Amino acid sequence: MRFFSDNAASVHPRVMEALTEANHQDTAYDGDVLSGQLNAAFSNLFETQVEAMWVATGTAANSLALAALCEPHQGIICHREAHIEEDEAGAPGFYTGGAKLMLLEGSGAKISGDAVDAHCAAIRDDVHQVQPSAVSITNATEYGRVYTPAEVAAISEVCKKRNLGLHMDGARFANALATLDCSPADVTWKSGVDILSFGFVKNGGMGAEALVFFDPDLAKATHYRRKRAGHLQSKGRYLAAQILAMLDNDLWLANARAANAGARLIADAAADRLIHPVEANEVFIRLSAAEAQSLRDQGFDFYDWGEGQARLVTSWNQSAEDIAPLAEAITAL
Amino acid sequence: MRFFSDNAASVHPRVMEALTEANHQDTAYDGDVLSGQLNAAFSNLFETQVEAMWVATGTAANSLALAALCEPHQGIICHREAHIEEDEAGAPGFYTGGAKLMLLEGSGAKISGDAVDAHCAAIRDDVHQVQPSAVSITNATEYGRVYTPAEVAAISEVCKKRNLGLHMDGARFANALATLDCSPADVTWKSGVDILSFGFVKNGGMGAEALVFFDPDLAKATHYRRKRAGHLQSKGRYLAAQILAMLDNDLWLANARAANAGARLIADAAADRLIHPVEANEVFIRLSAAEAQSLRDQGFDFYDWGEGQARLVTSWNQSAEDIAPLAEAITAL
Amino acid sequence: MRFFSDNAASVHPRVMEALTEANHQDTAYDGDVLSGQLNAAFSNLFETQVEAMWVATGTAANSLALAALCEPHQGIICHREAHIEEDEAGAPGFYTGGAKLMLLEGSGAKISGDAVDAHCAAIRDDVHQVQPSAVSITNATEYGRVYTPAEVAAISEVCKKRNLGLHMDGARFANALATLDCSPADVTWKSGVDILSFGFVKNGGMGAEALVFFDPDLAKATHYRRKRAGHLQSKGRYLAAQILAMLDNDLWLANARAANAGARLIADAAADRLIHPVEANEVFIRLSAAEAQSLRDQGFDFYDWGEGQARLVTSWNQSAEDIAPLAEAITAL
Amino acid sequence: MRFFSDNAASVHPRVMEALTEANHQDTAYDGDVLSGQLNAAFSNLFETQVEAMWVATGTAANSLALAALCEPHQGIICHREAHIEEDEAGAPGFYTGGAKLMLLEGSGAKISGDAVDAHCAAIRDDVHQVQPSAVSITNATEYGRVYTPAEVAAISEVCKKRNLGLHMDGARFANALATLDCSPADVTWKSGVDILSFGFVKNGGMGAEALVFFDPDLAKATHYRRKRAGHLQSKGRYLAAQILAMLDNDLWLANARAANAGARLIADAAADRLIHPVEANEVFIRLSAAEAQSLRDQGFDFYDWGEGQARLVTSWNQSAEDIAPLAEAITAL
Repeated sequence: MRFFSDNAASVHPRVMEALTEANHQDTAYDGDVLSGQLNAAFSNLFETQVEAMWVATGTAANSLALAALCEPHQGIICHREAHIEEDEAGAPGFYTGGAKLMLLEGSGAKISGDAVDAHCAAIRDDVHQVQPSAVSITNATEYGRVYTPAEVAAISEVCKKRNLGLHMDGARFANALATLDCSPADVTWKSGVDILSFGFVKNGGMGAEALVFFDPDLAKATHYRRKRAGHLQSKGRYLAAQILAMLDNDLWLANARAANAGARLIADAAADRLIHPVEANEVFIRLSAAEAQSLRDQGFDFYDWGEGQARLVTSWNQSAEDIAPLAEAITAL
Repeated sequence: MRFFSDNAASVHPRVMEALTEANHQDTAYDGDVLSGQLNAAFSNLFETQVEAMWVATGTAANSLALAALCEPHQGIICHREAHIEEDEAGAPGFYTGGAKLMLLEGSGAKISGDAVDAHCAAIRDDVHQVQPSAVSITNATEYGRVYTPAEVAAISEVCKKRNLGLHMDGARFANALATLDCSPADVTWKSGVDILSFGFVKNGGMGAEALVFFDPDLAKATHYRRKRAGHLQSKGRYLAAQILAMLDNDLWLANARAANAGARLIADAAADRLIHPVEANEVFIRLSAAEAQSLRDQGFDFYDWGEGQARLVTSWNQSAEDIAPLAEAITAL
Repeated sequence: MRFFSDNAASVHPRVMEALTEANHQDTAYDGDVLSGQLNAAFSNLFETQVEAMWVATGTAANSLALAALCEPHQGIICHREAHIEEDEAGAPGFYTGGAKLMLLEGSGAKISGDAVDAHCAAIRDDVHQVQPSAVSITNATEYGRVYTPAEVAAISEVCKKRNLGLHMDGARFANALATLDCSPADVTWKSGVDILSFGFVKNGGMGAEALVFFDPDLAKATHYRRKRAGHLQSKGRYLAAQILAMLDNDLWLANARAANAGARLIADAAADRLIHPVEANEVFIRLSAAEAQSLRDQGFDFYDWGEGQARLVTSWNQSAEDIAPLAEAITAL
Repeated sequence: MRFFSDNAASVHPRVMEALTEANHQDTAYDGDVLSGQLNAAFSNLFETQVEAMWVATGTAANSLALAALCEPHQGIICHREAHIEEDEAGAPGFYTGGAKLMLLEGSGAKISGDAVDAHCAAIRDDVHQVQPSAVSITNATEYGRVYTPAEVAAISEVCKKRNLGLHMDGARFANALATLDCSPADVTWKSGVDILSFGFVKNGGMGAEALVFFDPDLAKATHYRRKRAGHLQSKGRYLAAQILAMLDNDLWLANARAANAGARLIADAAADRLIHPVEANEVFIRLSAAEAQSLRDQGFDFYDWGEGQARLVTSWNQSAEDIAPLAEAITAL
């Protein structure tokens, strides 16, 4: 069984059905009926008026969000291991026209308001040094850690003081919400987030993420940038259909709960091996090369994560029965 | 019935089936089995070793191709009404880092080798003027005209003489091939084309086009650029599945023939109104405002195309029976 | 004697003296005493509070101005033969991050408010077409024509209606002013210009132009962009010194009057050959190949300007005595 | 007396004279006689065929060099405190179209071949991570440390192994050479450097640096990029004149020796306070706030460099007599 990544899992049947149901002629691009429902659907979910757009990938969503918050000559503060820094091939530099990522440390790929503040304070306020314009945080993080509303608000407070926008990379936003005892609104705009990349692909979608602008003004130029980046699909209704299916009846939350539950099972079996607390659907454990080999010999696939460490990611479609053999195998090591 | 654009039509059932068949876990990005079959499938179709990549949109395909052929300080020669100039929101400027589109005139949105040559000859060979690096032609063109292999070869000859790359925007490549009495190879690499954007979305696909590199070396950096542009979808197998379904048993050609046949029916009915010869699935006709209104009152939708002109586009799923009422209505005007 | 271009002439002695006088230690970049005087000097000249910056070249001045007025996904309307389009190697595309120049026709490289309006009206207001954000006009134009305050105001009216910024490329602003019976204020901010590239290099300077922002807010980000483009010279005082010397006692105007007077002499001698009215220091005449050769044989150098045409440019340091032989030679043809 | 920076010093009299001597008409841009002498002058100095270009600033020189070595989607390895990272406002990101600076640690702002190798080894060879394409080192470094030919060669060896270009930021190349017992060739192309930014402004020039390409092929596109960046000054002969004056009779070396000698005097007086070995014209010392105040009260100006540290930079025009009071004051602290 594969624990490489949730982005390789299959697509949820209700998403597939939604594609079939959408399969008739409609206006191209985002002029169709389904795309027209996104703003209302997300406004309802977030309990405030938002503007929402589909894009095919998290990288595009993140980069478009950052381009909305940052001029080419400015900078974006993020964690050194943020996806935008480590795994997006320099996409933020492309979309922003060369803005600089400013890297902070922090356990579990989390950053703090204090760290943001200290970083800004160390930048000379002159034209020779790149001035920051935005902060980007990932929730849940690249290590499966979760930001609480209070933690987000602490960062946002610094952002407001220093006139920085705040972006949340929510490739695993559903997984964070499934853990947090709060509403989607609580951990986003109520805590000061300006733009959210709301991921669905890792959570049962096929090829559709949502960009959610809590300040609709920020969305304006993004409509142009999305087209200019080749991300305005002409049959956009099939992306809208996926997203609406995921929102319908909170499928996104159910899927994330299932994935998180799988991670919990592994975490419990590997309690003495955990490198990070398990708060979403990723489990990072200490694992010797021999142990890793043993697990692989038993048919479990996963990524090594540096020397003596491994990453195991669970998906929406892995049940407790699916996970049990791995949990047992880890226990037996 | 709608004749707005082929990009609003529904998705072909066999493409939908292919999505369903692909719906199981596989390696992410383009490491999956289906994506791995693209090079062979297109090499077979084009009777030479090519490198092929999926991307979601024609705009992305075109822009990535141009970025492979043009440095930021250079220029790309195309028709004044080329899609890359008129309808892609400046995407080529984004992907190339600011290269300049150099616009030629030509009937039916076609350009000639002579026009390319004359344009180049008029550029001073100094650092003050942008120097061209590539030519982009559309086949079938934005006016539904078709380039023959001989016409492409004539352009390519100038390209070789002047050290220019040659890109073909084939958003309606299938429609061109359905008309031309030649092989896909004849009108592309055998006529000097370096990179082809091979469109499927307007022809029954959902959200997958193919970039075909006849010189695999040109593809190398494109792998990075595609990711950097947020176009490397993590569930790429669903794009590969669409394309493979379209190639299978020449579905792409059958669909294009159907669409072209529909356009032919309209063209025959509107023979005395034609603005351009009808060689693909687009029909441009002279139509007074009153006539346009009359057609719309009968339930036919289409775009006005400047004063007294209209554009009618047929799709893969419109049968002769579907088209007949429009043909009759035009005849009756 | 050379009539190639005013940009090849020598530097005025008072500018040279100013360099010598500035030759002592001072704060680097633009923190020196002389740079600190620019805002006041230009505010005085323009009779309003402006922000002024030195840069080394007109290309940099123009591009920084355009970047202040135009987002990467937008467009800039200018004449087809504008310097920014024809002779700056794509610099506007570089500085703006890929914005598109939108080209208008017009006699003598002049555009009209009506032409701007018509161009904008023809652009679909959707995300597929690049939307204009600014207009750039050259005064005096590339053909030595002058915009009057009324003509500028007519363009500005359209700009205000359509929410476009207005830039004036004043590489030969001095030559225009020397002809116009108006103040610098009249033909710039009082007529709606937002940013002026005020040229000195063609008019007796060495390597310093001024960017003048009539809306100081527009200057803010330009300070960063100038540094980011490598145009914040560390010994900026030598650029400020040049500009202040040119402004002192209206040397800029005296030099331009001298150059214009030279052009007038040629124009009078070539009255029946003029292609454009002569309003600044450039003379475009019909001249057969044999006639051109004859002039060159007599020691006069100049550029051919297409078939049967020639361009003669006079400089600040050419006296009536210097010009007389050319005038006579033309008369004698 | 000011010890802020060598970039604020006055211009050497022989450079001023050269400007005066150049003050007559000549061909514009770099078509003049003096610009035409640069290749030969630098080829002579470096004992190999090079291509040399003037630009006004070190930032422009560095950025043009990096753009010649790095595609937009690639990365440049440098020290965390390199000028290109810390003090150029993101210029490398602008000129390269968004390439990423990859930051290494190292004492005295020096990096080692091993550190470069280790950094590269940690990058996954896939399209998700930015792949390095070049290394940039500064000689002398931002802390006044010098790379020996052997140290440069060790870095170059890794570059060759990993297919990386090698750029040397020589804003204080003269100061390094004045210390090293080697030829300009030894520490550049003979040690594997591809492009050198050869600084003159900090060393008695006014506004001219040289870009030296040891592989003339790399210079080709740079001619276009320089113009496109607005750095092709129309009166380029005044930049060439400065550089030729500096090369004449090794004025560059004499000036650097004078500046280094001044730093040596300070270093000797502050031997127990030195933070870095003094190898060029910069002295970094431990200095309490009270001590700093005391020195300032005596008329010595300099930058604080973090808590309890100060930077003192000497210039070409400061004699032993000029420096002595500072040396004594430090001794007396």
